[in-house]
Amino acid sequence: MDTTAVDTQGKEQAAGHTHAGHGYSPRKDEHLKRLRRIEGQVRGLQRMVTEDEYCIDVLTQVSAATKALQAFALSMLEEHLAHCVAHAVEQGGPEADAKVKEASQAIARLVRS
Amino acid sequence: MDTTAVDTQGKEQAAGHTHAGHGYSPRKDEHLKRLRRIEGQVRGLQRMVTEDEYCIDVLTQVSAATKALQAFALSMLEEHLAHCVAHAVEQGGPEADAKVKEASQAIARLVRS
Amino acid sequence: MDTTAVDTQGKEQAAGHTHAGHGYSPRKDEHLKRLRRIEGQVRGLQRMVTEDEYCIDVLTQVSAATKALQAFALSMLEEHLAHCVAHAVEQGGPEADAKVKEASQAIARLVRS
Amino acid sequence: MDTTAVDTQGKEQAAGHTHAGHGYSPRKDEHLKRLRRIEGQVRGLQRMVTEDEYCIDVLTQVSAATKALQAFALSMLEEHLAHCVAHAVEQGGPEADAKVKEASQAIARLVRS
Repeated sequence: MDTTAVDTQGKEQAAGHTHAGHGYSPRKDEHLKRLRRIEGQVRGLQRMVTEDEYCIDVLTQVSAATKALQAFALSMLEEHLAHCVAHAVEQGGPEADAKVKEASQAIARLVRS
Repeated sequence: MDTTAVDTQGKEQAAGHTHAGHGYSPRKDEHLKRLRRIEGQVRGLQRMVTEDEYCIDVLTQVSAATKALQAFALSMLEEHLAHCVAHAVEQGGPEADAKVKEASQAIARLVRS
Repeated sequence: MDTTAVDTQGKEQAAGHTHAGHGYSPRKDEHLKRLRRIEGQVRGLQRMVTEDEYCIDVLTQVSAATKALQAFALSMLEEHLAHCVAHAVEQGGPEADAKVKEASQAIARLVRS
Repeated sequence: MDTTAVDTQGKEQAAGHTHAGHGYSPRKDEHLKRLRRIEGQVRGLQRMVTEDEYCIDVLTQVSAATKALQAFALSMLEEHLAHCVAHAVEQGGPEADAKVKEASQAIARLVRS
């Protein structure tokens, strides 16, 4: 897993991307851990359906997976505001406005989903 | 996959479960297909994070996965109301009230998640 | 307020409506109390905006009002399942299926809003 | 109504508040118009309950009011990011981090409500 992370980072740097532009690399391992846990929850749901488990128990597990996805999104969004958006705002100009607009639209999608 | 479905159904019948009690078996394949697609979305999210894709694109994918989980839950819930809850209501008595209460609590968890 | 409630109930009975068809009259006062509190929250929001209160405090109040609306909806929905839907299911036939379908669509709107 | 708005603005300026600190005054009239419409929806809900209107119609109106509250919150939040948070980020220091953190927490409350 670490090897992959290093490789990817190498590719990133080669492509000239800076982490100021992305910002979530510091918490990358935490993000991946959360997502693997969510994948496990979704696989658990498949097992529950296959084994005809009780509908309400399936729905409880869906609520847990949905909350976990939201928690991941909120953590991602906080980093995005603290890094990408803050970076653009420091630079100023139309790019700053565009980043704020873009973040607001992403928040709207999260609130509505 | 089909084999598993048949085996499970066999086990179900052997155990004396009736589908009136569960209700979602008729749409089992559809449910499993949805869940496998959601699993694919969550694995896609892991790939996106590993490859440092842009935060906003990750968040858009999270919204899609969340909506897909909700659609699965709503489909599950509709079947539960049409089968398990309706069955209990036809029987009447305290079990009917308990089923309605239980379904309402599951709906509350979905609305709040 | 009480006078109005009595009058309306009179009109209802005159029109031959049964509460089995509606179901929420037993909790009518509770519902109206909740809604008046929500109206108060929304008026409070207007005051906050008029007085230029801090955005985050306004947003906190919006979250409270949204949660209160959801709680009202969930209480309404539980009664609807316990009375209108259960009543239709007891009668059976296509009306029962239609009621379950209709309730599921209302739940979907709540989950998505 | 206009008179009040002018008075309040006068009071604001007298108190030495700057709009950089708040940010939503430019859209104040739009916000108040939205909120008055939401208040009307909530009063409409009270009328519907008083007149024993059909549960599903009441729930549809609740979904509309909830969506309207969310739209107000998202509009408020976008202004907050574009003004208060951007302003703090330009100044830099711990205040900038605190504003981003605070905004993220408000977003989390919206997503979860």
